[in-house]
Amino acid sequence: MDSAVTLALARERGFACHALSVSYGQRHSAELIAATELAKSLGAVEHKTVVVDLRSIGGSALTADIDVPEHASHGIPVTYVPARNTIMLSVALGWAEVLAADDLFCGVNAVDYSGYPDCRPEFIAAFERLAALATKAGVEGHGFRVHAPLMRMSKADIVREGLRLGVDFSRTVSCYQADGDGRACGRCDACRLRAEGFSSAGLPDPTRYSRQSGE
Amino acid sequence: MDSAVTLALARERGFACHALSVSYGQRHSAELIAATELAKSLGAVEHKTVVVDLRSIGGSALTADIDVPEHASHGIPVTYVPARNTIMLSVALGWAEVLAADDLFCGVNAVDYSGYPDCRPEFIAAFERLAALATKAGVEGHGFRVHAPLMRMSKADIVREGLRLGVDFSRTVSCYQADGDGRACGRCDACRLRAEGFSSAGLPDPTRYSRQSGE
Repeated sequence: MDSAVTLALARERGFACHALSVSYGQRHSAELIAATELAKSLGAVEHKTVVVDLRSIGGSALTADIDVPEHASHGIPVTYVPARNTIMLSVALGWAEVLAADDLFCGVNAVDYSGYPDCRPEFIAAFERLAALATKAGVEGHGFRVHAPLMRMSKADIVREGLRLGVDFSRTVSCYQADGDGRACGRCDACRLRAEGFSSAGLPDPTRYSRQSGE
Repeated sequence: MDSAVTLALARERGFACHALSVSYGQRHSAELIAATELAKSLGAVEHKTVVVDLRSIGGSALTADIDVPEHASHGIPVTYVPARNTIMLSVALGWAEVLAADDLFCGVNAVDYSGYPDCRPEFIAAFERLAALATKAGVEGHGFRVHAPLMRMSKADIVREGLRLGVDFSRTVSCYQADGDGRACGRCDACRLRAEGFSSAGLPDPTRYSRQSGE
């Protein structure tokens, strides 16, 4: 949902969008199929899925044999994937450099989120500084801007923005343990935050839940 | 050669080393086989090769259908792989976090090198700052140190350090277009820098060259 709204916002601002998904061994790989369809329907120039095998390092409920929690927890939850957003932004940076693009967009959010450190504004700012030093483009004087337009939005704001921009939320996959067809469990942290977004916005929740979710 | 000497230095300093290689689609994939052997012979606790498919973004002579240059060039050469060291360090950071390790070592060098931006001390310093913000470990108060012990060494210094530490340079692969058996072309930038290192140190060059190299 966050990625789709971010793409729609970038399109609205007039950017030609080259959309990137990372297949990192996430259990909810249905999000990759959904991303391919959404990128097309939201008008991306192209969509690419790059393989980064994070199952080989493990350490997260999303990439290792650890259960996805179905209750809210204190602190950073086990669904945190070590260095995931750093890795994904790094791949995006490499591709941006190949494309001679200066602008990167990502859908991180630090309001209604799971407390992941790599979703905070200070992380994005530090990555932007790194990008200028890490690249040929940076050395040659092109900066990179990392846009995180959802950073300070509530989940309800994100829902409203998406509806305003024509995002079909029935096609977006947020659930950490979505089934092969992209149907949501209704119980994990990602499902909880998403459902609260629709509820707070006072809008119907079009999420496709699996039968086991009881919804 | 740089990675092997870095590992030997880390071992000498008493670190238990978990060695990482990244299979990113480099044409000189023989370096991955060599790295596996070297990690074992230099006493790493383990060695892991993580797949990150950079061929899907291309943009470099090492990952796309672009010839490896066989003459020195001005500026940053086409063998530069966009954001490569950012991506590799990010994966290393993720693994370090899973291992609860605080120290990362990498063999970058900014003296006898190809001018890659992501080999400079300011890049390493920026990555270290990012690492503290990007991770659960960083938020919980563990810093990460990124050690780059070769940063200010000449290639001749690296050769001497390696010999002092017992690194078998006949097993290390530096060549950008090494053949399947790890034999070097003798003509690319990596071969040139490596050969000059042995020559400047006044030491015999044990590199295994391919027949076509005429050496």
